[in-house]
Amino acid sequence: MQVSSPTAGDLEEAIRLHRELDAIGATAGGGIDRQEATEDHTRSRTVIAEWLSARGFEVRVDAIGNMFGVWEHTPGAPYVLVGSHLDSQPCAGRFDGISGVVCAAVAGAVVRREVEAGHLTPRHNVAVVSWCNEEGARFQPALLGSSVYCGLLPLEEGLAARDRFGVRLADALESVGFRGTDEPPRPAAAVLELHAEQGVALEQAGVAVGVVTHCWSTLKWRLIFHGEQAHTGGWPMRSRKDALLAAAMFIVAHRALCEDFPEGTLRTAAAWIDVQPNSPNVVPSQVTLQCDARSDDETVLAAVRDRVRLTIAEIAEKTGVEIQVERFSDRQRIPLNDQGQQVIRDAASAVGEQTIDLPTVAGHDCLALQQHGVPAALMFLPSTGGIAHNEREHTSDADLQTGVLVLTEALRRAAGGALDQRDVQG
Amino acid sequence: MQVSSPTAGDLEEAIRLHRELDAIGATAGGGIDRQEATEDHTRSRTVIAEWLSARGFEVRVDAIGNMFGVWEHTPGAPYVLVGSHLDSQPCAGRFDGISGVVCAAVAGAVVRREVEAGHLTPRHNVAVVSWCNEEGARFQPALLGSSVYCGLLPLEEGLAARDRFGVRLADALESVGFRGTDEPPRPAAAVLELHAEQGVALEQAGVAVGVVTHCWSTLKWRLIFHGEQAHTGGWPMRSRKDALLAAAMFIVAHRALCEDFPEGTLRTAAAWIDVQPNSPNVVPSQVTLQCDARSDDETVLAAVRDRVRLTIAEIAEKTGVEIQVERFSDRQRIPLNDQGQQVIRDAASAVGEQTIDLPTVAGHDCLALQQHGVPAALMFLPSTGGIAHNEREHTSDADLQTGVLVLTEALRRAAGGALDQRDVQG
Repeated sequence: MQVSSPTAGDLEEAIRLHRELDAIGATAGGGIDRQEATEDHTRSRTVIAEWLSARGFEVRVDAIGNMFGVWEHTPGAPYVLVGSHLDSQPCAGRFDGISGVVCAAVAGAVVRREVEAGHLTPRHNVAVVSWCNEEGARFQPALLGSSVYCGLLPLEEGLAARDRFGVRLADALESVGFRGTDEPPRPAAAVLELHAEQGVALEQAGVAVGVVTHCWSTLKWRLIFHGEQAHTGGWPMRSRKDALLAAAMFIVAHRALCEDFPEGTLRTAAAWIDVQPNSPNVVPSQVTLQCDARSDDETVLAAVRDRVRLTIAEIAEKTGVEIQVERFSDRQRIPLNDQGQQVIRDAASAVGEQTIDLPTVAGHDCLALQQHGVPAALMFLPSTGGIAHNEREHTSDADLQTGVLVLTEALRRAAGGALDQRDVQG
Repeated sequence: MQVSSPTAGDLEEAIRLHRELDAIGATAGGGIDRQEATEDHTRSRTVIAEWLSARGFEVRVDAIGNMFGVWEHTPGAPYVLVGSHLDSQPCAGRFDGISGVVCAAVAGAVVRREVEAGHLTPRHNVAVVSWCNEEGARFQPALLGSSVYCGLLPLEEGLAARDRFGVRLADALESVGFRGTDEPPRPAAAVLELHAEQGVALEQAGVAVGVVTHCWSTLKWRLIFHGEQAHTGGWPMRSRKDALLAAAMFIVAHRALCEDFPEGTLRTAAAWIDVQPNSPNVVPSQVTLQCDARSDDETVLAAVRDRVRLTIAEIAEKTGVEIQVERFSDRQRIPLNDQGQQVIRDAASAVGEQTIDLPTVAGHDCLALQQHGVPAALMFLPSTGGIAHNEREHTSDADLQTGVLVLTEALRRAAGGALDQRDVQG
């Protein structure tokens, strides 16, 4: 199918809109810092809300702060959701999530224009979405808004999430005017998401479009190390129960685990830490550490689970520090809907782009919905050098424009019902 | 010499005053939290200021927030300073520093009363002192106020110290009304300090009074680990430059160092850490870690210095993380003035108490002055179980009252000139 739109003007508008967002919460190193429900994050939401509103979309904000640009052409028909997130990590790149919202907004507006001109008659309504707190940086868990939308996480639990200063998400949203009361668009017939790859597979293949086949399994947990507060000068070494020493031993052992599996099969991290009382002259009494392990192979994670348990016991024995384990997420390998994958391949082919299939190591909002039975399609655009969660993250304008073209075509197909036959695929 | 005062009433008043301070900033675990220039710390300063003022002392606050209760009976004569500090660690004990101020206030008032009754004719003026920011918890360095007083630290540098939220000490003092403009009492003929032992030597010896002979050498430094921010999912393990992993490796190696020296000769700590961006899904880009090493033997610390340099090079090599060393204090072994030691021994003997000699591992304000040529005398009271920097820190009422008796007698002697012959001792 030859498409006459998006027009060159649409493609230029996508880049202009992206640049407008790039300037909000910009950091000295060329990135952005727009964590959930901060002033800058709110400004970026408002830019998108006004942009959609000006194009006839009804902007709704639901009780967990998800924002939707709703276009209901057929009352009562299910929705195709298309979008990503606008919240960022601290000191992050300009593309992660944001490109997905920008491309979705332009794609939505183009398809709407086509329908209103009588060129298309879609089966499903469309909503452009910006999910709340995808990153899990300021509030945890990650994928918070999409998980509440699809029923994986109770609303009250999501609203009760607290940042490190004890501010509840409910209050943070309230304070910036994004604790909504609108009903979110339902039911969802399908969800589409475009995202930067955060890896080098596309770059190495020389291809602009990645079709995500599935998500690696991820294990996330929190360790609390209970030591004993003491004077760093006065207290004998052998009597110390140093919570930070025990946590450091765990971090080192956790990293070493990766050496015991074939290269590339396991990724681990311990990236968030809280130390009490965190005073130079006081042996730390309590440390909280967040850890994760990711693999494409469930048996690897099962082995990790066993090894972590052993490591904890060894360190507790050696240091006298009591170690408490709190598991807070155990995401199984999630396969993306087959028809969704095919829709991306077909849409790319329709605009003359090649694709490769690839997995995602990171979580994305559409995966939460897929996990809860909503057919999802996830497409990746190249990230230069695979750099992500870093101010130097980059996707070229040309790739972004390819993204708009492919996502628009995928949206046409999804709105036409291309992902509908859930019962058949089994 | 038989002494008729302190009276039973004075001793009871010391305990009452201590209990009044214990209630300020009290924690659930039976301790206190009154870090420098907080509201609770200020309330404790005000209690002491009013107590001294009611007994005729002129309360002065100098430019770095040291508070003095000045009693100038002989205009122009040098001062004996007697006191300690009221600021605490986070979640700390009720005795550390505070007992020293309480006992000093009562001792000062008693000696003043005796002089005014014509029973004594001291050579030196007396000032009860509460030094600013001894702990080095909220602001660094430790011993800040006493170091500025004696010229070890420039005033401007002290005022520019920032807490972890970027608040300058100057502004923190200003906001609680303790950035003073008064001249501190000078010159200092001698300084006396009473402090909890923070060790078990007195308890084990069954003696209530410790005569501190010298302070262990201490090396304090700050390491800055420069890694590279990346996605914990997307970024391959072998490409990571994880600043927290490198810091953890250092913490483990630093602790292991102690095993290479005879037990009890070296104490090390890494107790304060700052991690950026500290987000669960982001490989840490920068970690700052404060470390120290203490020994009674300078050659041990020289060996530590060499080993730390080697360890840093190894970890940098292994992790790709650049490690920057910032030395911020290198306190040599400080011997306490011989006559000062004898004054404590004689004072204890005069009130029928035995003493033992012992070193201090921790720093104390009077050591800064001793280092700068002011003869200092430091006496310790027992800490139950040696517990310090912990809510369970404890010194008994009986020991506190012994402290008042001995410190009062030591102050009589010091005010009489017992520590004066600096030139003779060489």
